[in-house]
Amino acid sequence: MTVKIAHTAEVQDFFKEVSGLLNDQGNPRLKQLVKRIVNDVARLIEDLQVSPDEFWTAVDYMNRLGARQEAGLLVAGLGIEHYLDLQLDAQDAEVGLGGGTPRTIEGPLYVAGAPLAEGEVRMDDGRDAGTVMFLQGRVLDADGQPVAGAVVDLWHANTQGTYSYFDSTQSEFNLRRRIITDGEGRYRARSIVPSGYGCPADGPTQELLDQLGRHGNRPAHIHFFISATGYRHLTTQINLAGDEYLWDDFAYATRDGLIGELRFVEDAAAADKRGVQGRFAEMDFDFHLQPAPKPACEQRSGRPRALQDA
Amino acid sequence: MTVKIAHTAEVQDFFKEVSGLLNDQGNPRLKQLVKRIVNDVARLIEDLQVSPDEFWTAVDYMNRLGARQEAGLLVAGLGIEHYLDLQLDAQDAEVGLGGGTPRTIEGPLYVAGAPLAEGEVRMDDGRDAGTVMFLQGRVLDADGQPVAGAVVDLWHANTQGTYSYFDSTQSEFNLRRRIITDGEGRYRARSIVPSGYGCPADGPTQELLDQLGRHGNRPAHIHFFISATGYRHLTTQINLAGDEYLWDDFAYATRDGLIGELRFVEDAAAADKRGVQGRFAEMDFDFHLQPAPKPACEQRSGRPRALQDA
Repeated sequence: MTVKIAHTAEVQDFFKEVSGLLNDQGNPRLKQLVKRIVNDVARLIEDLQVSPDEFWTAVDYMNRLGARQEAGLLVAGLGIEHYLDLQLDAQDAEVGLGGGTPRTIEGPLYVAGAPLAEGEVRMDDGRDAGTVMFLQGRVLDADGQPVAGAVVDLWHANTQGTYSYFDSTQSEFNLRRRIITDGEGRYRARSIVPSGYGCPADGPTQELLDQLGRHGNRPAHIHFFISATGYRHLTTQINLAGDEYLWDDFAYATRDGLIGELRFVEDAAAADKRGVQGRFAEMDFDFHLQPAPKPACEQRSGRPRALQDA
Repeated sequence: MTVKIAHTAEVQDFFKEVSGLLNDQGNPRLKQLVKRIVNDVARLIEDLQVSPDEFWTAVDYMNRLGARQEAGLLVAGLGIEHYLDLQLDAQDAEVGLGGGTPRTIEGPLYVAGAPLAEGEVRMDDGRDAGTVMFLQGRVLDADGQPVAGAVVDLWHANTQGTYSYFDSTQSEFNLRRRIITDGEGRYRARSIVPSGYGCPADGPTQELLDQLGRHGNRPAHIHFFISATGYRHLTTQINLAGDEYLWDDFAYATRDGLIGELRFVEDAAAADKRGVQGRFAEMDFDFHLQPAPKPACEQRSGRPRALQDA
């Protein structure tokens, strides 16, 4: 049995005090946010009759989540990162913005500072015996005209579904590159076909997903930041057609317009021309940018990110 | 500008999906809680027009909070732990329970398994040159009759305001003991006068408190779990009179009925009788237990706690 007290003047005054609203120091915006959060927590406790044991289990979970640095993974898995995209889409629609390649979630595994190349680059270090993948395409504006000098910042998993930096067995910046588009707006990358990511099996995100009756798998995919002066920053992904998790993605990142088709080539002459041996894959994917309504829109979000010095 | 979408059928269905409510596996109670939390987060984002940058700052904060294992400290500092006491008080009042020593917050720094003694014990290892403190009192029932065989499980900070186990410079279980009351319900402890605790200056809890215009200090205090067969478990504290933070406690744990007065003695004969040298302190504090309405009430909450093998 839970008695409701959060609405009383006494408790509301207490929540103002804890949120710093009764002093004139600090950050007014954060005070407002904290007051709301404390109030929401209390209402949740009362409405759902949360027991002390349940509350402390949640507090312990937060400690374990942060100890594993999985808060970003959890908000992806709970669909909140996708909800933020739906929110931004709705805001765009409200002001008549739209068109171009859809946005989708960044995920928590970006690392800033990947090597920068002009036009084309090889992304893999050759140590992973995956299928060679040739990825190419153009960055275009709303009229289909090429955007030269755009930065295509892309990152993807290896054949084990793990990412360099977070997987310390991989070399520095393996499968992470930034490519500046050429005069035709073109980027070209040689890499390896990625495998789908799965949440760490022994981590707190997977533990919660298990309790929700959900898996923690993503389809194979490639992440992109696309930026260019005068254009809106685009955070998106190519998700690979044919993957069993394409439309059953624990992070809900797959969207129409963001599905890539690999062409597998088993032609010796073609391989020879590409300078590889045996079967390889090709994929073309163009990105369409929106004009930036204001210069600030050229930048990605200020989300705190891992930074590695090469 | 934030467009509200959380209330739409499409987004509500999505939140059901992420919470596992559309599958029949897992834990129905947790699904209900997660659905509510996801919904509350989305409503908060929409109502307070939370920007992506603010959202990701919060996610990063959760990672940093857990990395420092400060989630329990934060919920104390945000008054949520005290709110839980107010909630339990209100539940008690609703069913006519009451009387006895008030409960107050446990805090995050208990360690299970402290040495067990009969009647009396010395708690400090002699390495901290603090003022010697003789603490004694009785555990009594609602009628003022002694409760023999009660376990008085007490822990407190050293003169630096830090706790053994969490402060690895202290010896094992320093200032942590369990004392079984004698036939008169009496416990006796020799220890040192504690100093008030302050949140780690470089930690995420203090960082948030700074933004709220608040300090992170507690008055000097002594924590107690009191338990005995047939009685309700009591989690409480003695907060020391005269401390500048007595009624300005960042964790809001001080309550009427939980204030202890140290008597400082500077009498050579009295010191000699106590077997100490120079100035020392004495304090008497009795605890009054409620009868347990049911056996489960004899136990402390199931909160996950640190466990150290002596």
